[in-house]
Amino acid sequence: MDNLAKALGGRIRAQRKASRISQDALALACSIDRSYMGRIERGEVNITVEKLYRIANELACDPSSLLPQMSEL
Amino acid sequence: MDNLAKALGGRIRAQRKASRISQDALALACSIDRSYMGRIERGEVNITVEKLYRIANELACDPSSLLPQMSEL
Repeated sequence: MDNLAKALGGRIRAQRKASRISQDALALACSIDRSYMGRIERGEVNITVEKLYRIANELACDPSSLLPQMSEL
Repeated sequence: MDNLAKALGGRIRAQRKASRISQDALALACSIDRSYMGRIERGEVNITVEKLYRIANELACDPSSLLPQMSEL
């Protein structure tokens, strides 16, 4: 399931860039440590569903839109 | 965000019952401790996205179908 973290992180990064928000700004808005946000986007950590919701909320998108399809994994 | 864990746990329980799988059997299939599965369904813990996928996989449903709407929270 390592692919999951990588695919999820990639989707978060893409959505953040589409929203023109810096990684630092997103981390601050979500109360997530800056270096941890980098690790999330690189797929190095398995985030909780609660963090997924906080990130989606700040990116003004639906949490489910950040979830990779099972067929991608 | 306590509501999130409760709403997510409730959806997992409902989907499990619809699939006619016991909590113990689901826990075993997902390699999740039995008592922890109880805590998940009661919304006492914040699960990782990776566990969400493992549970959805065993319940043969889409992980996003288990996510509560933000408007529910």
